[in-house]
Amino acid sequence: MTPTRWEAALPSHVVIREVGPRDGFQAEDVAIPTEHKVKAIEDLAKAGISHIQAVSFVHPKRVPQMQDAEAVLWALQKQPGVTYSGLALNLAGVKRAVATQVDALEISVSASDAHSRKNTGMGRDLAVEQAADMADMAREAGLEVIAGVQCAFGCVFEGAIPEKQVLGMVEAYLALSPQALCIADTTGMAGPLQVQELMTQVLTLSGDLPVFLHLHDTRGLGLVNMTAAIMSGIHHFDTSCGGMGGCPFIPGAAGNVPTEEALYLMERLGIATGVDLSQVSACSRSLEQFLRRVLPGRIHRLN
Amino acid sequence: MTPTRWEAALPSHVVIREVGPRDGFQAEDVAIPTEHKVKAIEDLAKAGISHIQAVSFVHPKRVPQMQDAEAVLWALQKQPGVTYSGLALNLAGVKRAVATQVDALEISVSASDAHSRKNTGMGRDLAVEQAADMADMAREAGLEVIAGVQCAFGCVFEGAIPEKQVLGMVEAYLALSPQALCIADTTGMAGPLQVQELMTQVLTLSGDLPVFLHLHDTRGLGLVNMTAAIMSGIHHFDTSCGGMGGCPFIPGAAGNVPTEEALYLMERLGIATGVDLSQVSACSRSLEQFLRRVLPGRIHRLN
Repeated sequence: MTPTRWEAALPSHVVIREVGPRDGFQAEDVAIPTEHKVKAIEDLAKAGISHIQAVSFVHPKRVPQMQDAEAVLWALQKQPGVTYSGLALNLAGVKRAVATQVDALEISVSASDAHSRKNTGMGRDLAVEQAADMADMAREAGLEVIAGVQCAFGCVFEGAIPEKQVLGMVEAYLALSPQALCIADTTGMAGPLQVQELMTQVLTLSGDLPVFLHLHDTRGLGLVNMTAAIMSGIHHFDTSCGGMGGCPFIPGAAGNVPTEEALYLMERLGIATGVDLSQVSACSRSLEQFLRRVLPGRIHRLN
Repeated sequence: MTPTRWEAALPSHVVIREVGPRDGFQAEDVAIPTEHKVKAIEDLAKAGISHIQAVSFVHPKRVPQMQDAEAVLWALQKQPGVTYSGLALNLAGVKRAVATQVDALEISVSASDAHSRKNTGMGRDLAVEQAADMADMAREAGLEVIAGVQCAFGCVFEGAIPEKQVLGMVEAYLALSPQALCIADTTGMAGPLQVQELMTQVLTLSGDLPVFLHLHDTRGLGLVNMTAAIMSGIHHFDTSCGGMGGCPFIPGAAGNVPTEEALYLMERLGIATGVDLSQVSACSRSLEQFLRRVLPGRIHRLN
């Protein structure tokens, strides 16, 4: 065991993708008016966030909070240089997405067969097959494609997810020539050594393609896992302002890593993000007012 | 920038000192009956915690929650192999401690002059001088001595604390031949690179002496700072079950790193602690019942 200083293993810059407007809002019980969603997305862009996952195109009966996806996107004053993306889980979702002004679409499949069935009604293998058609349709409409793997670090229904399963999906995705990948710890089950092990292998396959790591803070390890990933070469992270979030189809699922805590961590690691922490905090505090709950992040309440 | 895998830099074992019965209880508004305190301490020892900071010997008017320190210690069924310690900030406290059956005494001085005055009524330099007499008195009574530095990473009143100031205090302490040191981020202002920088220098001075790192999770970086410290060679950590805690004399101070999250982190890093996570979680859940508040830790609520 040799003492190790972190400084030399850190990059100069990372990209923060804000997913609160999708992963956060979808988990809230209070109906959020479209104009509040639009305002939050616009405020986050003004704070310097360069990529915002703004909506998902899923069935309104399954995720009622996202039923105004089109309305949100049409109302939005887009800011130059910012990517606004959506999430789709099936072809019906892609059809909706291509009719909007969304810039990028994440097509996402769970590495857990059981979670995939609950989330989309399709088993994993069928969902991966369908992802090829989804990617084609999105690309033909001029959208960037992000190919995502959910439950990559474990599943509350299936337990451990073999790395081979995740890497097989990554290989299938790479054949679709996406603009980015996303590896998600949907259930907040990842640990730092596991993150380093899997991410090192994913990066070996993906080369220069951006790989987003989507972490949930269910067991408090979110920022440790993020730091472990940075030191393995991952430079793209999903976070949600105030730490909103949680999958509606996973019992006990907690929020994403709070954007503010990720920004503060980067600041303390000497890593640039281009995002103004105090503006994001102000956004979280105003979200708390209409969500009528204290969000789990700590930093936005210190300002 | 070179990708770095953590595994090779991790120790096989770390020591967790539970400080909830002192740092946690002192910050609670609800009066906690002595028998509840005793039960919590006994339950934590049964869970495998080998060192518990059980009480502080401070003026009952300043910290009313600790006024039954002697009663707690006399009522306690001590478990063999467990160190029960107390905290004292002045000679009056040491006098009380030596009349009890406490095993070890932490004498603690703030690296911030302003915080020291608020906490003890003494400036830092006077407090360091007095620490020599405190250490002598405790040692003569057969107590182990732990010499602590508060606000070592910054102070809400003074801002940045020069490393030189902390290292000067460590040198003064080493002349007192203590059994351990404790370096505290009392205000939760530490960042991981700062932790590695300071701890590396402290360890250079302290040699084989155990050095406890006492972290607060005010800004969410508690576990990242802990991981950074482990990789600098620190193997002793203060935590509090459920994440209770906070200094009564620091506005906005948040709890310690939750014991459960520290234990879970160690589990996921492959580091042994000898402590049963589920038993500590059960203890935190029963504390929540009589504290009548949800504690900030996440893991104890998942079980």
